Order: sequence, then C-alpha cells, then structure tokens
Amino acid sequence: MTVSELYMKLKDRSKWFFMERDLERLLSALRSSEDFWEVLDRCEVPVLLASWLVAELEREGLVEVGGEEVKLTREGEKFCEDNRIPPHRRLECTWCRGKAVHVEGYMKVLREFKKLALERPRPLREYDQGYVTEESTVARVVLMAARGDLEGKRILVLGDDDLVGLALALTGAPEEVVVLDIDERLLDFIGSKAKEIGFGRLETRRADFRDPLPGDLVGRFHVFLTDPSESLPALKAFIGRGVVGLKGIGGAGYFGLTRAESSLRKWRELERLLVEDFGLAITDIIHNFNSYVGWGYEREMRAWEYLPVKSEPKGIWYRSCWFRIERVEETPLDNSPIEGEIIEDEEMATA
Amino acid sequence: MTVSELYMKLKDRSKWFFMERDLERLLSALRSSEDFWEVLDRCEVPVLLASWLVAELEREGLVEVGGEEVKLTREGEKFCEDNRIPPHRRLECTWCRGKAVHVEGYMKVLREFKKLALERPRPLREYDQGYVTEESTVARVVLMAARGDLEGKRILVLGDDDLVGLALALTGAPEEVVVLDIDERLLDFIGSKAKEIGFGRLETRRADFRDPLPGDLVGRFHVFLTDPSESLPALKAFIGRGVVGLKGIGGAGYFGLTRAESSLRKWRELERLLVEDFGLAITDIIHNFNSYVGWGYEREMRAWEYLPVKSEPKGIWYRSCWFRIERVEETPLDNSPIEGEIIEDEEMATA
Repeated sequence: MTVSELYMKLKDRSKWFFMERDLERLLSALRSSEDFWEVLDRCEVPVLLASWLVAELEREGLVEVGGEEVKLTREGEKFCEDNRIPPHRRLECTWCRGKAVHVEGYMKVLREFKKLALERPRPLREYDQGYVTEESTVARVVLMAARGDLEGKRILVLGDDDLVGLALALTGAPEEVVVLDIDERLLDFIGSKAKEIGFGRLETRRADFRDPLPGDLVGRFHVFLTDPSESLPALKAFIGRGVVGLKGIGGAGYFGLTRAESSLRKWRELERLLVEDFGLAITDIIHNFNSYVGWGYEREMRAWEYLPVKSEPKGIWYRSCWFRIERVEETPLDNSPIEGEIIEDEEMATA
Repeated sequence: MTVSELYMKLKDRSKWFFMERDLERLLSALRSSEDFWEVLDRCEVPVLLASWLVAELEREGLVEVGGEEVKLTREGEKFCEDNRIPPHRRLECTWCRGKAVHVEGYMKVLREFKKLALERPRPLREYDQGYVTEESTVARVVLMAARGDLEGKRILVLGDDDLVGLALALTGAPEEVVVLDIDERLLDFIGSKAKEIGFGRLETRRADFRDPLPGDLVGRFHVFLTDPSESLPALKAFIGRGVVGLKGIGGAGYFGLTRAESSLRKWRELERLLVEDFGLAITDIIHNFNSYVGWGYEREMRAWEYLPVKSEPKGIWYRSCWFRIERVEETPLDNSPIEGEIIEDEEMATA
C-alpha cells in the first residue's frame, strides 16, 4: 500500500481537513519516538487530528497502542520503509535551540527574570494561560532588540501570561510598556513587580479583546506582542487590536502560532488576513521559537479524551512558531466590538 | 529635529517608497559601523535607497562621507541620541549564525561539497549569478531534512548557481533531482560532478523561466528550490514555475528574498501572491539565512554609481532570508509564456 492509497482511505472517514503530507509527518514522528507527547511535538499535525489518525492507524494494523506507548507495528515499520518515510530528525541548532537569536548578551535579564517569575500566578484554564519558558520570553526580547523594536519604543502587550512585560521592564530600554490582560491577578503581579524593580514606565490595564482597543491606546505604539488562543476569531481579535494600537506604517508586531492547534490551512487563512486586510509584511517566522511549560491542567483540556495514551507529558511538548510582522500599507482597520465566544474552533485542543 | 520631521522632509524629495522606519534602521546601522558595506548589510534598507539617503543625510549635515568611510557627524550622533536610535546590534546565534538549523550532522556533506565547489564556473553578471557560501547551501539541505523535504523526495531546482543540486546529490537521499538553468556551463559542471560522485538520479536541463515548465515536469515534484532575481516579475516567474512543478497539496518550496533589493512593500506584494494566488502557507522565514560570496563584479552592478563609497566589500555584505512554503489549496496556476525582460525593477541593485 502506498501513502496515497492509505490517505485516500482515511480521508473519507475523517471530519478534519488533512493532507497526505500530514499522514507522512505523523508516521515520520512515530518512527522517531514511542512517547506520544514527543510524537505530537515532532509531527506538526494538529493534536486532535493526530489522535484520531493514531486510532485509525491502529485499526489498520500499522500502530500499536499499549499503556503509555504508541508504536509502529512491524507492518507499520515496513510501510514506512516501502514509502521512504524516514524517522523525524531534530536538526535545530543545539546552542540557540532553533531560536536563531541567542540570549548570551541578556544573561543578567534572564537571571533576574527567572527570579521574578518564581512567584507568578498559576495558569488558569478558563483563560487558556499556558505560558512559555523564561528562555523563550527573554529570547523574544532579544529578537526585538535585534530588529530595532526595543530601545526607546512604546510597546503594547496584549495578554501577558508569559510576563513579557516584566522581561521588557528588566532591560530598562522601552520608552513605555502597556500590559493588557483579562486576569486581574496577573496585572497586579506584573504591576507590583515592575515597581519593585524600579521600572516606572509600565502600565497595566484590564481588557477583553472582544472590546475595542481604548481610544487613548489607538495608534500609540511602535510595537505590539501577543500570544493568542489559536482559533481564527481569537487570532484575528488579538492581532487586530494589536495592529490598531500601532502608530501605522513601520509599526511592528509579534505573535505565536502552533502546528498543534492550527492546520496549515488555518495558517494560510491567517496569513491572508495579515497581508491583505491588515496591510502587513511578514518579516520572520521562526520555527518552534516558543516552548511552553506544562500547564498542569492537561487532563482538563479538550484534547484529553481523544488522546490515545492517558499519561501526562514528561517534558516540553507544545511549541509555537514566532511571527514578526511590519505594517507597510494603511489599509482600513476594524476596532468594533466582537460578539460571543471567540476562543473555540474545531482544531483547538488545549482550551 | 525628530525622525518624523526629517522623514517628511526627505520623503518629498525621494522617488522611492520608504518608511520613517527605514530611515531609523539606516541611522541605527550607521551608529554601528563606518564601513558602508557593513552598513548596507545591517540596515535592511534597499541598497539604492540607502545610497540615496546617505547623500541626503550628508546634505543635512548628519553624515560625512570621506574616502572609504561613511560616518555620522557629531550632529548626526546627537540626532540619534535625541531620538533614541541605538546602534544596530547583531544578536544572532553565534553557533548557527542565525540559521536556526546546524550543519553538525552534515559535516561530511559540507566537506565534500566544498571540494566539489572549488572548481565551480565563475558567476556571470548577465545571469545575476552571485552565489551563497557552501555553509548556506548545506544549511538549506539540513533544513530540508528537518522539514521532511529530503529523504525519498523528487526535488526540482530552478536555477542553480548555488549548486544545491550537488549538495543534495551528496546526501544520496533524494529519489530524484532535476536541475534547470539557463547557463550550459553550470549544467555541464553539475551533471558531470553528480556522475563523478556516483549519484545517478540527477538530471540537468536547460531552461528559461519565461518559458512554460515542460509538460513532463508539471505536477511531478515533492519539493522545489529557487533563488530568483528580486524583481517581482522574476520572483513570480521562478516561484510560479516551481509551484507548477509541485505534485499539488502538501508540496513544499524554498526561495530567498533580501532586504537589499526588496522593500517590505515588495515583500508584502510577493506574500500576497504566494498566499492568495499560489494557494500556499508560508511556514518559515529565516532571517539572513543565506550569505552571498562577493561575486567579483560589484563595479559593474547597477548600484555602483549610486554608492557613496567606491571601495570593494571586504567581507560578506549581501544576505537573504530563506522562505519555506507549502501548498495547501488547489488554486488555478498559470504556466503560460512570459514576454520581455523580467529581472529589472527599480529596487534592483546587483544585476
């Protein structure tokens, strides 16, 4: 049997959009690890789809699920060999871990940031608050410095469970940092720590991104950062408010996007929105730049019941790619209110 | 004077599209080096625009051009300080040089590739044949391996002054490599070296990308690579033929794009074309992934007469960002002939 034949067979049974290529990616990841969380990390196929596919592959006799493990059967191995699907290899740079920038020059910021973050509020599932490692947060700041988006800049952070606002404050470099979040606990924590370290130009404010960006923040910032839930409406809302906050042409933004909760079809839809509607050029997409610390509520997340194994992850398994965009065209922007729930779509796994 | 005021003043005199942000980037680069080639490398402003801007800044008394050097005057330094424009800092990872992947596992390929490349034909200006370092070429191959675009794949190379075809051949991994180029010297060299190293699945064929992709190559490949001249028509032609060569959904492609010859406005136009017309998702944009070896005909290139200094570059000054795309939607594609010259546009500097 060829991959194409297997694909055609499975595709008809599936409610999800997927490509032959996704099947190939999953098989390649399965050849490289028997830990399902590692497979999820490596396969770059949405979590729910990967879970469904593993069940189908089990039906086909290509995969065995036993206890904590998912592994290819002898037939599955042969199928991969016949179809020249190699084991997935991680070839990212071992020094920067694929981030392309390195925190070397910012070790002091990283050390102090780690100390501050020790006391962070625990993440809440209701706000989808899984957060990234301290190394990821500081790497974001380093990238901003490298791209000229840090020193003397007015920076808007939309949602800050990652505490980027504090990492920015620790550099002392920005002209102003405004942190918006829906969670008062976070805002209080960030505000008080910023004061503690003596950075007076950080403001916190409660915000729901379904509401319009407040008038005094519109068109005020050089740079924004956000790491939205990955439904298209949430991406559009969070990034959209960020773009509305920019000074206009030349304003830059950063946000994360995964392959775990967003198919490449969603990637394309989002990219069209960015380029066409928001008047942006995409300048950087850094693969798996952000590593997320296990948030401790895995068992409560939507994907749990679909997972082929019911063990908790042993290490980091959820990563996101980091986008940088820059506004180059003054397209008309929308700052109107958004009705209803926005953080759900069919590919969402962690909310 | 603020940057905005200076920008408004200069903008009116300019025939080029540029943003206040570009002026800021140039000034930031000027604060970090007095070697104009280094400034060009760091400023991320199109070469012709940067040259024009330096002349204007000289008129404004902010810059001095003397002999081989371009430097900020005392007034220029003060202007930067007042406007909080910091010196440009290179913060890329020192191990992978910002490539995010590392060639460690491919050192044997790199060594053998360097040996083969010693005898490469010299680049010709008429075909815009500046080529990348051997490290860049092999890093492309490593990235392909990391993304599952190498092992067992049918790969199309559209234009190969970088000798990617040979680096691919050295891995022994692809199912097939087809190298298209307009230059018979290159094709002969690549074909004979592939034979010499015992890789029999490489075919070379002469092609002009203004012509339709030959019927037997349409829809045949899993992956394409190209590094076009940077006019929008050339980008469209080279990448467009590559996409026509792909098997369809799930097919992947790689190409380079600079900031030296493409403003972010051109980036946006190209990205719109990729996403909208070509049905692609952009999965990776790795900043300055490709470093180009000085091609030796700098004095003949279009930009030479505009450059504020007439020295030749001492090191690498021309880099490109490396895009990976993946086809996710079956949009209608165009394989019709293209008339006339395609490698010129107003931002082109090296042709």
